[in-house]
Amino acid sequence: MKYSPGCLELIDQRQLPTQEIWVRATTLEEVAIAIETMVVRGAPAIGCAAGWGLALDAHLNHVNGTANDLWNAYKTRFLKNVDRLARTRPTAVNLFYALKRFQSLGEEIPNDTSMSKVAQRFLDLAQFLDDDDVRTCKSIGEHGASIFKSPVSGLTHCNTGSLATAGYGTALGIIRSMHSQKKLKSIFVDETRPYFQGARLTAFELLKDNIPYTLISDNMAGYAMQKGLVDFVVIGADRIANNGDTANKIGSYSLAVLCKYHQIPFIVAAPMSTVDIETLDGSKIPVEERPRVELLEVNGYRVAPSESKVWNPSFDVTPASLISYIVTEKGVHKPPFNFSQMRF
Amino acid sequence: MKYSPGCLELIDQRQLPTQEIWVRATTLEEVAIAIETMVVRGAPAIGCAAGWGLALDAHLNHVNGTANDLWNAYKTRFLKNVDRLARTRPTAVNLFYALKRFQSLGEEIPNDTSMSKVAQRFLDLAQFLDDDDVRTCKSIGEHGASIFKSPVSGLTHCNTGSLATAGYGTALGIIRSMHSQKKLKSIFVDETRPYFQGARLTAFELLKDNIPYTLISDNMAGYAMQKGLVDFVVIGADRIANNGDTANKIGSYSLAVLCKYHQIPFIVAAPMSTVDIETLDGSKIPVEERPRVELLEVNGYRVAPSESKVWNPSFDVTPASLISYIVTEKGVHKPPFNFSQMRF
Repeated sequence: MKYSPGCLELIDQRQLPTQEIWVRATTLEEVAIAIETMVVRGAPAIGCAAGWGLALDAHLNHVNGTANDLWNAYKTRFLKNVDRLARTRPTAVNLFYALKRFQSLGEEIPNDTSMSKVAQRFLDLAQFLDDDDVRTCKSIGEHGASIFKSPVSGLTHCNTGSLATAGYGTALGIIRSMHSQKKLKSIFVDETRPYFQGARLTAFELLKDNIPYTLISDNMAGYAMQKGLVDFVVIGADRIANNGDTANKIGSYSLAVLCKYHQIPFIVAAPMSTVDIETLDGSKIPVEERPRVELLEVNGYRVAPSESKVWNPSFDVTPASLISYIVTEKGVHKPPFNFSQMRF
Repeated sequence: MKYSPGCLELIDQRQLPTQEIWVRATTLEEVAIAIETMVVRGAPAIGCAAGWGLALDAHLNHVNGTANDLWNAYKTRFLKNVDRLARTRPTAVNLFYALKRFQSLGEEIPNDTSMSKVAQRFLDLAQFLDDDDVRTCKSIGEHGASIFKSPVSGLTHCNTGSLATAGYGTALGIIRSMHSQKKLKSIFVDETRPYFQGARLTAFELLKDNIPYTLISDNMAGYAMQKGLVDFVVIGADRIANNGDTANKIGSYSLAVLCKYHQIPFIVAAPMSTVDIETLDGSKIPVEERPRVELLEVNGYRVAPSESKVWNPSFDVTPASLISYIVTEKGVHKPPFNFSQMRF
């Protein structure tokens, strides 16, 4: 993700690993569409992209307006922008966290502030959220790696790396830290149907970083555990409820059940901004259902009859009772989880 | 599967559901290659195809030879044919069952029998194995349906239908029988990566038979169970050990663990010819590993970096302790299983 005034460049994650194509979003609507169509995905990355989108629109309003334009006149458009971005994807809470940070900033800005100053403050906040995410992920990585003493083999699901965040990654941040501390033998990468985030993105990132990995299909994870090849599972999160129930990429719940059965630690890695203390438990998390075509076709190649009824939930919710650790930038949290009561 | 003297026609299952292409095998080697390359797949279907292949070669030897050709002179070639077919795919035991039936027949035939008679007896045995599979599957269907009293919703994995057998199907035979007895609300179909047998073949068969189904990716099964949408899981088998341990399509074991956790009956459906009493338990079942390209590409479209290390076991082994029922043509078997001690 690269921002220059008036343009947010996003690597088109749908084309990876075949092609590295950068999409240029030059309006807020284009940023919103990039999120909806999964040019950019991954909970923290979506939050950062939304922040850059708001900064972009404030910048455009400033440069296209007069020197006398004031925040007061722009505010309605700003709130519409927030609404538009909020409607892109419903499950990941980092998006709403970023939007809330901007709304709070908006409330602090005096009505008669010049748009040139507003644009600068929006830019600063977007940059702060971006930088903060990198710092946070590195901290998650360090905390997560501290769980392990000797080299072990793990398994991860979906993509939680540089592509899913502003950089470094959450679950993949832990894997990176473990690797650099020589605590990682190898990691199984679930291909993560239907969108192949594991095959396309996680494998791509691990390959670039020379971290040893083995690609499997999602339905091989149980067999790998049965054979004693998996010492831990680490995933990211799209939303963590106050009690620790965790929404993440579809298939995470199955992995958690498999871990329980095989007595393998199941680790969730996420920034505190993914914890939504207002969502008391997992039953309150909305789960996005995505288009049926994702299961009927792969890159235009039909793999099932077009008349098929399809169920395509993009996420599932793992109850806290199946989670061994939740790792945030604040440390390694153990059950029972109650984030609203936490003091740092 | 259609046999006419000198030609075995097989629907190319790799092209379904997009195209219905029939492959014509006119030599035993072509039949062997069709099995290896998965033009035909499914444990009972592989057994039938092997039978037709042996009948085909005996026929060719007869028509291309002289009227005086004898069984004695053909026997070496016959044994080489058996060896060739035995090397096609290692896990499914129905193949070895069919080959054994032919070997027993071969031992009974007097040395001075004319090849015209041998060709006829081979044809009769291939036809018998084919017809017997259909009868067997219908019986499996009836027994399986008897487990349920009122309409329920299920989930199945891979393809166990007409395409995987000589007709009707094993697990899909139970689903067909339940549907015709109005005991089936709907069935979830796992797409079954990496080969998409569920998406491509099972959905295709259910659509043709107007049986209501919902296509999901393999990693959605757990979430469907968590939501109470699955009352039973039924799968086929490639080999059942004497103690009930069952080798079946990769992902079956994960489903069994998920069923255990959610207290959902896990049903295995297979003909008695899939039970291998000489294999005492699952640890003795060889598990085929297939080419890495199946995980790297979908129909030539790259979904993962080509440098990726891949693990692609085609099957897994579910321990008997996770199986609620094994349904064969002999009835509904409950644990503990000990097939060598069974008396019918």
